[in-house]
Amino acid sequence: MTRHGTVVSLLTDFGLRDPYVGIMKGAILRRFPGANVVDLCHDVPAFDIEIGARFWAAARNHFPVGTVHVGVVDPGVGSARELLVVRAHECLWVAPDNGLVDEVVRSASDVAVRTVDLAGLGLAANSTTFHGRDIIGPLGAMLAAGTCSFESVGPGRGYEPREVDPSPRVLFADGFGNLITSVEAAEVDGVSVFDLEGHTVRRVATYADAERGQPAALVNSYGLLEFAVREGNAAEHLALGRGARVRWEQNS
Amino acid sequence: MTRHGTVVSLLTDFGLRDPYVGIMKGAILRRFPGANVVDLCHDVPAFDIEIGARFWAAARNHFPVGTVHVGVVDPGVGSARELLVVRAHECLWVAPDNGLVDEVVRSASDVAVRTVDLAGLGLAANSTTFHGRDIIGPLGAMLAAGTCSFESVGPGRGYEPREVDPSPRVLFADGFGNLITSVEAAEVDGVSVFDLEGHTVRRVATYADAERGQPAALVNSYGLLEFAVREGNAAEHLALGRGARVRWEQNS
Amino acid sequence: MTRHGTVVSLLTDFGLRDPYVGIMKGAILRRFPGANVVDLCHDVPAFDIEIGARFWAAARNHFPVGTVHVGVVDPGVGSARELLVVRAHECLWVAPDNGLVDEVVRSASDVAVRTVDLAGLGLAANSTTFHGRDIIGPLGAMLAAGTCSFESVGPGRGYEPREVDPSPRVLFADGFGNLITSVEAAEVDGVSVFDLEGHTVRRVATYADAERGQPAALVNSYGLLEFAVREGNAAEHLALGRGARVRWEQNS
Repeated sequence: MTRHGTVVSLLTDFGLRDPYVGIMKGAILRRFPGANVVDLCHDVPAFDIEIGARFWAAARNHFPVGTVHVGVVDPGVGSARELLVVRAHECLWVAPDNGLVDEVVRSASDVAVRTVDLAGLGLAANSTTFHGRDIIGPLGAMLAAGTCSFESVGPGRGYEPREVDPSPRVLFADGFGNLITSVEAAEVDGVSVFDLEGHTVRRVATYADAERGQPAALVNSYGLLEFAVREGNAAEHLALGRGARVRWEQNS
Repeated sequence: MTRHGTVVSLLTDFGLRDPYVGIMKGAILRRFPGANVVDLCHDVPAFDIEIGARFWAAARNHFPVGTVHVGVVDPGVGSARELLVVRAHECLWVAPDNGLVDEVVRSASDVAVRTVDLAGLGLAANSTTFHGRDIIGPLGAMLAAGTCSFESVGPGRGYEPREVDPSPRVLFADGFGNLITSVEAAEVDGVSVFDLEGHTVRRVATYADAERGQPAALVNSYGLLEFAVREGNAAEHLALGRGARVRWEQNS
Repeated sequence: MTRHGTVVSLLTDFGLRDPYVGIMKGAILRRFPGANVVDLCHDVPAFDIEIGARFWAAARNHFPVGTVHVGVVDPGVGSARELLVVRAHECLWVAPDNGLVDEVVRSASDVAVRTVDLAGLGLAANSTTFHGRDIIGPLGAMLAAGTCSFESVGPGRGYEPREVDPSPRVLFADGFGNLITSVEAAEVDGVSVFDLEGHTVRRVATYADAERGQPAALVNSYGLLEFAVREGNAAEHLALGRGARVRWEQNS
């Protein structure tokens, strides 16, 4: 079954300065000209699997059902690490077995995971450095084209996401300087004041409710607690970033 | 009527560092898999509606007739500001009511404007921070798909673009360091010498006519007066940027 | 013959900060709505034809057969330089006659080159500065649509790539800080130790074999010798960049 127009989304840490992403797209279209290749993000910090995993989780439920999400954040390229295909959230997720799928798996109620049998699929690297072009992208194309099904990529296996630091903290600053935390909306239901490394920050419902120039806390579009400065840059304003600790008193 | 392949262009200040643009594209394709989503620009300076409005005007007449242009430069996200759909230049333009459509409207001979009735269209935000994903993008998808027509988005209204500073000045420096001004080609017809904050700059017809390393003035592809240095960076060379004043003597 | 879905790839030095690339895409789709426009790279260093030529060579054989590659790295825009269409590697390559096609031509066994007869094709610039939008992009669209064939773009001509500096050297640092050299894999077959401006660097098969924090040499995905630091930045680590000299003793 050829599924013309099937979306293949790309998540990498390649950046856009070089032609790597463009060449990977070419390789996907060469295998499946009907693919609708969409950039999810190419500026995952280099080799930062944890951030990549969060970005993928943020994309779940927003792409078309049946989307093939291809992820290449891969410090182990060229080593013996395996490739996985995960079926979750009504989509497929293709990635090295290094934790990139962890948050997608953790957030799904129904998950199936398979190890890719590269030899069985006729995929072999032309280079030892660019698996996005030579293996992972082409595999995504085959899955999108339907020339290879989830069931036929290789043997099924279990999958246990890695443990994560459970302490409430800043995960990263986004391009606006908003400080995105690890705190899920449900954990802070009803909480109206936070302590961020000694700064007392009040909660607002939306950016427009925040006082201009003052930090405010809100639940963002990822469903995570975020510290922001309205029309400003919270990371610079507070001189804080990844790892900054968040505290609060649970409302009684 | 489904219009497969209809172009949906995106103009935002999201940048490409984060997955926001990618997730917005997913949300558009989820509503209308046949959309041909094209990036116009995602590096409008944060919250800079005036520059965004200029970029939109620069794109008019260059996209296919029927393109749905979606714009999210939106410092008021989450506040009560309305959403607009504008019909002008044989395209639709979807944006918050904050001035982003001003230059498109100002440059059009035939304009119709409607306020979006979100509730009537079944659109409601899943977040208070990411209307590009939850409202504006999906609305663009519905218009591109033809599941919602211009006439049915909501009530018609008048629209008066905001007054702009009429003084001739630099609007912004582009990525090459070219200084793009507010001066339309017609205003300087026949003028061959300009004063830019004390620098005397001669006009050339094209970059190739400029002396290497010397600033030159020319009418650029936007139809605006621009100060450039051939194979160099005028903004750095002159240490000038936004707001720098332009003067000239009208030729007699 | 209309070839819906034909890939039009774009290589420019426009960057993504401005709407130039987006407007060029609009102009292509306006001519041929069925084009599948793909970004190869827009961050060729400004006016750097040599790097652009290398990026194009790196993309050969990875895009679908029949892809129309459009290149705009064009310091001579507005001057009298000609436009070329090259048929090589089962694709078409559209570019100014300034050397951008040199590496594509040099690497091809079968090449045909034509000079574009703009007037004959009904193409004329609306601006003297933005040929990507007004001429080169639209020509790419016509070739992709099949409304203009390779044979009909203009008269055939010979083409001799420019001489390049034959000395082994670093061509550029990529976004990871990897130092990409001019040395082809075949030149260093069996060589296991290199001298890079006084640094002795050992060869590895793949990034994963390199010692963390130490520079290593390997043949990269372009088929070129590269100096890298595993999970690090070789350009910063060694404080080297373009032009750095590479030496080795041929194994006997």
